[in-house]
Amino acid sequence: MDSTTIIGLVAAFLTTGAYVPQAVKTWRTRRTGDLSLSMFTMVFLGTVSWLVYGILKDDLPIILANTITLGTSFIILYFKLREVMEQRRAG
Amino acid sequence: MDSTTIIGLVAAFLTTGAYVPQAVKTWRTRRTGDLSLSMFTMVFLGTVSWLVYGILKDDLPIILANTITLGTSFIILYFKLREVMEQRRAG
Repeated sequence: MDSTTIIGLVAAFLTTGAYVPQAVKTWRTRRTGDLSLSMFTMVFLGTVSWLVYGILKDDLPIILANTITLGTSFIILYFKLREVMEQRRAG
Repeated sequence: MDSTTIIGLVAAFLTTGAYVPQAVKTWRTRRTGDLSLSMFTMVFLGTVSWLVYGILKDDLPIILANTITLGTSFIILYFKLREVMEQRRAG
């Protein structure tokens, strides 16, 4: 494997893995006040789009990376949406 | 342009643009308590790696998308690190 490919794999590992500690933190604390709803909505919809793109291009690395991010970004977005709805209900 | 390319561009726009509202929110509120330090450290280092990868592969879309995310993720990480350091100083 050449060094460019290794750098690409490190990059993919970092930007995919990044959502894991945020999902764990959000799951544990249930606190999402400082998270941007727009950010995590865009990340989730973007990940769905990347997944469709990967399937259409039959590109395994894109499919794998975005399947992981689909799960982690869903967890974060779920808790963010729950907080937003609770705040609306509270007036 | 075929529909697969359009889906890929939508995906790139969403996952790159996602950091903009988070950077704006963090800049305005200066509050980063609910953000994971590990997440934004990994996103920043991952973006640097993607940028090096894009330059080595001479891939303009990768270079452009990651130049934007380098800026937005740096803003978020800067405020997160500032909060962490302030908390350490406060004991």
